[in-house]
Amino acid sequence: MAVGTSTFSSRWVQPPGHVRDLSGGLPQGFRAAGVAAGIKPSGRPDVALLVSDPPHTTSAARFTRSATQAPPVLLSRERCRLDALRAVAVNAGNANCAVGDPGIEAAARMQAIGARLAGVDDAQCAVCSTGVIGVALDVDAVQRGLEAAAQRLADDGDEALAGAIRTTDAFEKHACMEVELPSGTVRLSAQAKGAGMIAPAFSATLLCFVQTDAALSPETADLLFGVCVKRSFDRITVDGQLSTNDTALLLCSGASGVRVESETEDELRFGEALDGLLRRLALLIVRDGEGARRVGRVVVHGGGGGMVEAAARAVADSPLVKTALYGGDPNWGRIVQAVGMALPDAAPLALDVDIEGVAVCRAGAAVAHDHVELARRVAREEVEYVVGLPGSGAETEVFFSDLGHEYVNVNAEYTT
Amino acid sequence: MAVGTSTFSSRWVQPPGHVRDLSGGLPQGFRAAGVAAGIKPSGRPDVALLVSDPPHTTSAARFTRSATQAPPVLLSRERCRLDALRAVAVNAGNANCAVGDPGIEAAARMQAIGARLAGVDDAQCAVCSTGVIGVALDVDAVQRGLEAAAQRLADDGDEALAGAIRTTDAFEKHACMEVELPSGTVRLSAQAKGAGMIAPAFSATLLCFVQTDAALSPETADLLFGVCVKRSFDRITVDGQLSTNDTALLLCSGASGVRVESETEDELRFGEALDGLLRRLALLIVRDGEGARRVGRVVVHGGGGGMVEAAARAVADSPLVKTALYGGDPNWGRIVQAVGMALPDAAPLALDVDIEGVAVCRAGAAVAHDHVELARRVAREEVEYVVGLPGSGAETEVFFSDLGHEYVNVNAEYTT
Repeated sequence: MAVGTSTFSSRWVQPPGHVRDLSGGLPQGFRAAGVAAGIKPSGRPDVALLVSDPPHTTSAARFTRSATQAPPVLLSRERCRLDALRAVAVNAGNANCAVGDPGIEAAARMQAIGARLAGVDDAQCAVCSTGVIGVALDVDAVQRGLEAAAQRLADDGDEALAGAIRTTDAFEKHACMEVELPSGTVRLSAQAKGAGMIAPAFSATLLCFVQTDAALSPETADLLFGVCVKRSFDRITVDGQLSTNDTALLLCSGASGVRVESETEDELRFGEALDGLLRRLALLIVRDGEGARRVGRVVVHGGGGGMVEAAARAVADSPLVKTALYGGDPNWGRIVQAVGMALPDAAPLALDVDIEGVAVCRAGAAVAHDHVELARRVAREEVEYVVGLPGSGAETEVFFSDLGHEYVNVNAEYTT
Repeated sequence: MAVGTSTFSSRWVQPPGHVRDLSGGLPQGFRAAGVAAGIKPSGRPDVALLVSDPPHTTSAARFTRSATQAPPVLLSRERCRLDALRAVAVNAGNANCAVGDPGIEAAARMQAIGARLAGVDDAQCAVCSTGVIGVALDVDAVQRGLEAAAQRLADDGDEALAGAIRTTDAFEKHACMEVELPSGTVRLSAQAKGAGMIAPAFSATLLCFVQTDAALSPETADLLFGVCVKRSFDRITVDGQLSTNDTALLLCSGASGVRVESETEDELRFGEALDGLLRRLALLIVRDGEGARRVGRVVVHGGGGGMVEAAARAVADSPLVKTALYGGDPNWGRIVQAVGMALPDAAPLALDVDIEGVAVCRAGAAVAHDHVELARRVAREEVEYVVGLPGSGAETEVFFSDLGHEYVNVNAEYTT
């Protein structure tokens, strides 16, 4: 299922009316480039540089909560002005993780080189790495790559950036849109990578770089970005595995001259556009899902907040549910099993289950239904499961990929 | 890897010196039988009856903690004298789960029929079912099966019982041993089923029936069984999935005339034998593991009790670790990732990792090692991972199966 961004469509993500898709091109004020520096054994592009030229660029950031965070994450968190980033130096093919002090030195060198090439302070350059864990990073190669990228910085460099950050991704993930706000028109673009080692409900996941030429205060940028990350990357899972290197960054150049003030119609509309953008990229990551054939969405409502969250994650991360999704098998007993596992000592639990609008279980008991029709519906590319728990007031959703032979191939046969 | 019980060997489970393996045969006082009753579409044996004839038989029981427990579990917990069970009526091929009131009625009918055929009170007959969830159980077929089984009850019926409770199991799991105690010699036997929907750290998992002709008080039986279940079935995972129907039962007929009194050398030695038996069966379940090729053991030491438990489970249930085990890939970065995920907000975490005695990571940093030798070691049938967290005082282990193509085949292509 090689769905590119340009052909993206999902009933679960409807773009707002004031947003128009563009084929590409960074917002005003940004330049980017991606080059092949020899980090990936395949020889594909693996080093990229992103620069925002306006000096008053604002930013927001989210990072993995892993206890084994990689040096680029530690360094970006601790030695960057996260509200005023103007550059990102990034490599793929090596996570620069679990390699000891040389890893910290490598990340610091990437920051210094990126900052020098971008003409900004060290603290304004974030560093990201993704790839294999536990192998020393060839920083000389990264330096050569960053220097080459600096020569090729272009305002249509977003696609090259998206290409250079891929690892096991089957396709590039990027999007670009024009957003009409009451105060004027701004542009919004993003590039993401991620297919495996993707888990929901953490403060951030994967690599995602978002740019806009709207002017946002650091507080507004942080608030909107935080909410939108929670509604997108925090609601997806491929394999339930939190990465050591996940980083999501929003940079706002302000070059359009359009200010998005707090608590205005501009903020609301910009937030809707950002929300749609991040949910689209999140869904693309699930669709990639290291060989995924189908995407599931589980909605759990009822009970308390903790109950719906636990139940939704248990369903989305169950290898039994995921293999059934892969096989196009309407085996709803596995939904019942997964929810039961998520809520120990709560027996008996009178739960409802609907799959693609077909009621299969009510108050914990099977319901007669059209098996042929259900089998037809679970063979589609998107399958929706709705679970009702006793009580009311809470609701959540998780998007998840299936589990099939390609996932095993990707993860058993290569050190990734 | 079709390892039968008779050829069982693992460096992780050493039988105590006072135990001698037997090829089969139930302890004195027990009879069992398994027959084909048409519940499984394959036509294989699917109904079994176990009876202990001595009226003063004692027992102990452990059940799944799932919130969607099946009627046989609910009924056995609520309507049985769990300290004085004398019979078990069991079927495979249908879990009798999530089918509403008919499920409760079916379980009650199985109990009444089993009790009548065994000549015991209803409350002395436990009921177990395993198989597909959400499909009505054909109780008439089960009744015919139990009646046929009652005609064939035999003191060497343990293998037939083990065969009749299989579902996705690739091989039968049963064991029989003679245990020398200071007060005399007793026999201990067990039959188990389980390959998928197996998760650790719950109060019980899978189906397992254990018999002995030693005489134990209900309190001693419960204490020993509880400790041994915690050290065996609670320490394994195939796919991290807790079942709706898991039940483990110990029946003590006392027919050998040898009493195992509390706080005696008899109790110690009997406990060692029971421990070895349950750990052996637990490991057989992991080896089966719906197509597993290799078995892993992760040992985590250091830190606090909660930390080692969370880290060990995260490693054992990580699809990235499991696919690497399947592929014979010494990708220890995934161990680092899984431990980091288990302990959010604890960065930076200085952890040690050893694989098969080879140090690969110290204080969070890669250690130079012989890659060829490590690759050779992770290609064996059993692979051991040792993770050291900062601190000391706590240690735990989890045994786990790999994740490969057979698991996908078993779970994507059939409603099981």
